[in-house]
Amino acid sequence: MRTQRTRGRILGEALALFNERGEANVTTGTIAGSLGISPGNLYYHFRNKDEIVAELMRALEARMAIEPVVAPDAPGAIEDLWLYLHLTLEAIWEFRFVYRNLDDLAARDRRLRERFNRIAGRKYRGVVALCEGLARVKAMRASPEEIRTLALNVLVVATYWLNFRSLRGRGGEADLGLGAHQVMSLIAPYLVGDARRHLDRLARNYIE
Amino acid sequence: MRTQRTRGRILGEALALFNERGEANVTTGTIAGSLGISPGNLYYHFRNKDEIVAELMRALEARMAIEPVVAPDAPGAIEDLWLYLHLTLEAIWEFRFVYRNLDDLAARDRRLRERFNRIAGRKYRGVVALCEGLARVKAMRASPEEIRTLALNVLVVATYWLNFRSLRGRGGEADLGLGAHQVMSLIAPYLVGDARRHLDRLARNYIE
Repeated sequence: MRTQRTRGRILGEALALFNERGEANVTTGTIAGSLGISPGNLYYHFRNKDEIVAELMRALEARMAIEPVVAPDAPGAIEDLWLYLHLTLEAIWEFRFVYRNLDDLAARDRRLRERFNRIAGRKYRGVVALCEGLARVKAMRASPEEIRTLALNVLVVATYWLNFRSLRGRGGEADLGLGAHQVMSLIAPYLVGDARRHLDRLARNYIE
Repeated sequence: MRTQRTRGRILGEALALFNERGEANVTTGTIAGSLGISPGNLYYHFRNKDEIVAELMRALEARMAIEPVVAPDAPGAIEDLWLYLHLTLEAIWEFRFVYRNLDDLAARDRRLRERFNRIAGRKYRGVVALCEGLARVKAMRASPEEIRTLALNVLVVATYWLNFRSLRGRGGEADLGLGAHQVMSLIAPYLVGDARRHLDRLARNYIE
């Protein structure tokens, strides 16, 4: 038990430090030092930093494995979409070091890239399913082709929003709310009547 | 004249090599070798690779300094928007090594980051001006707030599209057309009547 707890603490501390300073600026020594454990103790759990990164990517994939639920009525379906996007963006924020450094991580390690692609593929299918559900209950007016194009834009904006904000000299937690608003606004124009007003209300909560 | 010509050849070769292999994988030696000139000749023009990158970023900024023109009628305004986005995406493709490696370049050099931000700020204002023009001639139905949110999404998708595709294992020239299609599709739902059909036609050309 003790051992499992140490392993968990190492992962938690690594995640916090990677997010705060950038993964490239954190060594296994930094992590051990910050936890007040010996490097040997850390190496007992992880042979090197890449193993820690790989384990965190596994945790991210698990966090992202949210099955979209599609309610049979319009207000319910909007809430489902909102919740799905909200949870996704929260996971992106929690593992923001990955999203701020995607290219580098993907270039360095084929398995990390494959894992990112599994996450992205699952998200794409999730957004498509939610939009199809909205179209079914007449809350959305969009062709199947428009839904595919829309889902791809949702993916791009959600993936790169924090990155973009940090290039623009921002990228703090407040930007997460702005990102949610930006993503919702991609979907809003395809919604009709009450559904659009409902989403506008939910999205507005993020920026007020 | 001879000297200016060599300087131009170095920049052209560097751009081609950076785009093809990634900037990190190209040295000044690679560039000189590829041109069949001595390293000394190259150093006469550029003290190091960073100077070449900085000069290419200046060239990118000049390429991006496209003033949006807004025609006084709806079909003209749509063509203007289309041309503006097309030229922007072409410049992104021409300098794709910058966009594939934005974080790293921006982290390495404050001036490159400032230059990127000037380009992004100009693009944002350009898209806002074009959308406001479309709203004026009643080709677009969007509030000023919706236009600002839309312009930001246009910027994010245009900036990161190639990056996203290359993570997904693609990212060739064919993806440029898909990117244009994705960007146009952000704007399409805000257009009304003929304007929307007109843009759909222009956008469709990219993927057929």
